[in-house]
Amino acid sequence: MLNVGIIGAGRIGKVHAESITYHVKGAAVAAIADPYMNDETKKWAEGIGISKISTNYKDILEDKAIDAVLICSSTDTHADISIEAIKAGKHVFCEKPISQDLGKIKEVMETLKTSNVKFQVGFNRRFDHNFEAVRKAVADGKVGDVHLVKVTSRDPEAPPIEYVKVSGGMFLDMTIHDFDMVRYLTASDAVEIYANGTALVNPAISEVGDIDTAIITIKLANGSLAVIDNSRQAAYGYDQRAEVFGSKGQVAVTNDTASTAVISTADGINGEKPLYFFLERYMASFSKEVSLFVDAIANDTEVPVNINDGLQPVLMAKAAKKSLDENRPVALSEITF
Amino acid sequence: MLNVGIIGAGRIGKVHAESITYHVKGAAVAAIADPYMNDETKKWAEGIGISKISTNYKDILEDKAIDAVLICSSTDTHADISIEAIKAGKHVFCEKPISQDLGKIKEVMETLKTSNVKFQVGFNRRFDHNFEAVRKAVADGKVGDVHLVKVTSRDPEAPPIEYVKVSGGMFLDMTIHDFDMVRYLTASDAVEIYANGTALVNPAISEVGDIDTAIITIKLANGSLAVIDNSRQAAYGYDQRAEVFGSKGQVAVTNDTASTAVISTADGINGEKPLYFFLERYMASFSKEVSLFVDAIANDTEVPVNINDGLQPVLMAKAAKKSLDENRPVALSEITF
Amino acid sequence: MLNVGIIGAGRIGKVHAESITYHVKGAAVAAIADPYMNDETKKWAEGIGISKISTNYKDILEDKAIDAVLICSSTDTHADISIEAIKAGKHVFCEKPISQDLGKIKEVMETLKTSNVKFQVGFNRRFDHNFEAVRKAVADGKVGDVHLVKVTSRDPEAPPIEYVKVSGGMFLDMTIHDFDMVRYLTASDAVEIYANGTALVNPAISEVGDIDTAIITIKLANGSLAVIDNSRQAAYGYDQRAEVFGSKGQVAVTNDTASTAVISTADGINGEKPLYFFLERYMASFSKEVSLFVDAIANDTEVPVNINDGLQPVLMAKAAKKSLDENRPVALSEITF
Amino acid sequence: MLNVGIIGAGRIGKVHAESITYHVKGAAVAAIADPYMNDETKKWAEGIGISKISTNYKDILEDKAIDAVLICSSTDTHADISIEAIKAGKHVFCEKPISQDLGKIKEVMETLKTSNVKFQVGFNRRFDHNFEAVRKAVADGKVGDVHLVKVTSRDPEAPPIEYVKVSGGMFLDMTIHDFDMVRYLTASDAVEIYANGTALVNPAISEVGDIDTAIITIKLANGSLAVIDNSRQAAYGYDQRAEVFGSKGQVAVTNDTASTAVISTADGINGEKPLYFFLERYMASFSKEVSLFVDAIANDTEVPVNINDGLQPVLMAKAAKKSLDENRPVALSEITF
Repeated sequence: MLNVGIIGAGRIGKVHAESITYHVKGAAVAAIADPYMNDETKKWAEGIGISKISTNYKDILEDKAIDAVLICSSTDTHADISIEAIKAGKHVFCEKPISQDLGKIKEVMETLKTSNVKFQVGFNRRFDHNFEAVRKAVADGKVGDVHLVKVTSRDPEAPPIEYVKVSGGMFLDMTIHDFDMVRYLTASDAVEIYANGTALVNPAISEVGDIDTAIITIKLANGSLAVIDNSRQAAYGYDQRAEVFGSKGQVAVTNDTASTAVISTADGINGEKPLYFFLERYMASFSKEVSLFVDAIANDTEVPVNINDGLQPVLMAKAAKKSLDENRPVALSEITF
Repeated sequence: MLNVGIIGAGRIGKVHAESITYHVKGAAVAAIADPYMNDETKKWAEGIGISKISTNYKDILEDKAIDAVLICSSTDTHADISIEAIKAGKHVFCEKPISQDLGKIKEVMETLKTSNVKFQVGFNRRFDHNFEAVRKAVADGKVGDVHLVKVTSRDPEAPPIEYVKVSGGMFLDMTIHDFDMVRYLTASDAVEIYANGTALVNPAISEVGDIDTAIITIKLANGSLAVIDNSRQAAYGYDQRAEVFGSKGQVAVTNDTASTAVISTADGINGEKPLYFFLERYMASFSKEVSLFVDAIANDTEVPVNINDGLQPVLMAKAAKKSLDENRPVALSEITF
Repeated sequence: MLNVGIIGAGRIGKVHAESITYHVKGAAVAAIADPYMNDETKKWAEGIGISKISTNYKDILEDKAIDAVLICSSTDTHADISIEAIKAGKHVFCEKPISQDLGKIKEVMETLKTSNVKFQVGFNRRFDHNFEAVRKAVADGKVGDVHLVKVTSRDPEAPPIEYVKVSGGMFLDMTIHDFDMVRYLTASDAVEIYANGTALVNPAISEVGDIDTAIITIKLANGSLAVIDNSRQAAYGYDQRAEVFGSKGQVAVTNDTASTAVISTADGINGEKPLYFFLERYMASFSKEVSLFVDAIANDTEVPVNINDGLQPVLMAKAAKKSLDENRPVALSEITF
Repeated sequence: MLNVGIIGAGRIGKVHAESITYHVKGAAVAAIADPYMNDETKKWAEGIGISKISTNYKDILEDKAIDAVLICSSTDTHADISIEAIKAGKHVFCEKPISQDLGKIKEVMETLKTSNVKFQVGFNRRFDHNFEAVRKAVADGKVGDVHLVKVTSRDPEAPPIEYVKVSGGMFLDMTIHDFDMVRYLTASDAVEIYANGTALVNPAISEVGDIDTAIITIKLANGSLAVIDNSRQAAYGYDQRAEVFGSKGQVAVTNDTASTAVISTADGINGEKPLYFFLERYMASFSKEVSLFVDAIANDTEVPVNINDGLQPVLMAKAAKKSLDENRPVALSEITF
């Protein structure tokens, strides 16, 4: 039984704590820490049987009984806490992105080199049933050589402007999942990126220097081409689709819905909208990524999303941003790391 | 080039005249007759190049230049005109049903025995692209031995009460197509029928002794079971579906739509309703059945829908009506022919 | 916190124990009993934290700390244990069917009359996301007055002949869920039933006096008509669909799949088969029915599936069997209760 | 009745001749000319009632009885024949593209200025039922302000290398329809284009300086973004889809199939592949575009696809080619016209 400590008791920290408690075999949540730990959170933590509750994550790092940590704190703390945790000999599951600062990611990579701990990055969508099915079809050769990849990723609602301001920009905040998805589906790295982006959903987003609508094209190392289309706001809900097209055919996935119900009336043939919220849509993937992290520790095998998988989407986001700023295709090699 | 005469210039007569003119190779409409021939119809007939226009179908039967006739007159005249036409040596394409009177069908059959002409019945839905695909899958063994057949057949709107009164009842007027469909899809005959029926769409239909809603179950000679569900009024339009289920799987067809467009908004995911009107839905099947009639004459081969195919659905309709009246399953053998 | 005892540690007993432990708020499994309790089951029970493990269900009934029992033992013991449990003052959740013997169900009903405990029957499919969506559409008036109901229910594989022999027949063993579904979707009772049935999947099923393929039509008290089609073996997996058609339109649900993936190649456009196994397909419904049972106890409200809901499908199964035996429609009023 | 002359009796010339004869009201084919007119074509032309058959298109232009011409000759002759026809006072329907040479298009435009004839360009896909449904939804405001447009256009098979050599390149030969589609669906012009392209289907295509796989992104004058993905070979057939996404939602169309049949077996759930050939897929659109041309003449109204609509996609193709060659976004204003 692996003892896990959760650092950060916000939304995603709670999701992981509950899914470990209820769905992950071979692991238990031994401790949780959050500087803003309040009574409500404390009560919730006790309710699911977490015995050690703290306002200081160092209490977790210093606890010899704890084998692994999940870093669910704010993004700007991911890298530093990762480094401390690695040095404390804890296995680390770090929420994405590791950092928006490439130098920080490099530090984590350096620290890891002299350590034997596992380090996994939280790109959960790889473990979603639909995207797994696409990857499996590609890996099984069902579509032949990959020629084209298309990822549609649209949020149901734009975030508040206050969030947009500190988000690091849409590419680092939202598209980063899609950059990872392109790499996951193709098992190939990006070579060059061209990004078109604009603010059509909300002009205020443009005023704070960000975009809400984008089409990003990517040349991949395997010679294939990919395209991502993003919007911060799809009126019909959370739109998460992908297609991979190749020499033998295509695999495509569309959205999940709450039911298969179709209502036919004089007004038309009406099906359900996609699941609206990312926690509804991707809940099972959160359990699965942590289960695989626990398995990798138990069996001393490779983690499914390693630190390079954490790095590459950040590089892609930086290249996309440079492309947008300079209105030209940008090679990944231009991004200094 | 086969010279065809059309007897009856109502809706279906016009459909056949136009489809022969524009879509049927190897045939031309040489004449058309209708007792109620008016100026508008005359003008239409001239417009598509029909040279002989008459108020008396006997003008067609007496015309040596005419090889075949399409009998599109009112149902109660089908059998008598068929007999006259056969005796005049014309090949006959007779709209369904041949007659609501089994004795009359018998007379036509007797007349045919001493003749060499082709006689085809107008069960056009057999030549619809969707139902042909179901039949092909079954005939190709894709579903294995047939176990269950399901036919959904619902009209977009109930007919006027005046029509209901003289229609011969829903089973003879509407379900007759579905009885034929069950035979076509399975290549097997009905052995016993049980019918549940009621008037839920319009109580006035009940007052004139008819029904508008039914579920009819059928035992077939090949041991399989079939079910037809009917409604005189589907709010979302003309609903025409079928499934055949067997030892190896199932083939199913759903409705045709005007386009594949799906509109996704905050209100839901909205697709198009089925094509509303039987002429829209089945137009291509009308050309195809006549093309095959023309081919059968040209090549002296079997017609695809022979007089027994015309008879059996009438027997099934009679058995269904008796079942409804007596609330018990009725064997086809109980229907005196 | 409600303390629950599970009587019967077979497949469904284990499903309920795990779902209460992990997914049902406000309840915990305090005890489990099974006459065939073995080491493996014991270990499993301890693993999920059940403290009291017994070979005798009376240990549970005598335990004052236990508030409610789930009766998951073999069908022939459901009624007697229910009666004992009610007399012991325990709330009862009884797996379906309560009994295949109507006299036994009557005894349970009588016992209940002099008691204040809750009694719920395990028709879990009512709590499936798809069927709930159909019911909601009907209850919300989306389809108007109900005219036609269609339930397709086909198992992926026929059970072993040894099971068939003791199953009570397909109607009581399998169709019973579909009888309940018709009542649930329409909120109306059956008045008369006509059943066609045969053994097409496996002739050995016929030799032991049972069927594996059926079409059952039902007249309902609200004037509408329903049809159920059953097969013990669908080559493509577990087929669970329903449609309700009415004056304003139709609501239909189709099968769930493991993913939305569609693979398009030269061989065709290929989607995933339905989830194969009932535990995959209906897992969430098992949690939900027990949650609602727990809520009904906590709030002293009506259970969502009461003893009459347990009785009616047994009456329907008896009527269907009589109809099959006598080849005639059978009124529910003919079934002596 | 409009008398039409067809210039060019190749595949598309025959399609137009037959569709005018059978489906276009108010017009008849009075003459056809082709320098390579052979006996087979002559027989075919006579068979559909064309009285004047020639090897010289000037015979048509000089015929006072002819009101309009359809220019279906080889692409390099379109512009010159158009100019001659306009000068001869004939209304012109010119197959796409008008020319691959912008100077030639300019000449046609100049000639038109001093004339009163109608001039329509053969972008038939605008009149396809699916794309019309998308346009209608957009024009009706169903998706709100347009943010993103996606066009997928993939041929079932790459053309022979000999054809590729003289085709003018994929953008002018194939993507030109998709460039038109983006303009049609949005009613907006392209401002800047970035094209990624490569030869993945067949390396020989690369050797002759062309590509077979591309992703092209477009900035539109209305501020929205569009993306086209192309392949010369989709293993599953002709893939023709589009989506328009906006502030209120999305409209999407997918492929047409020969039937709605779905076959479910142990191997999966199998639907039909898209219609394979462009003549199957778009046949109705060829009739419709000519009907509208005939109507525009009859009523002296605007043609639905004017010479600017013919010009713009050629400009877009040129910009895309320049972008591909120089690996940078290219403004439409950079293309000298």
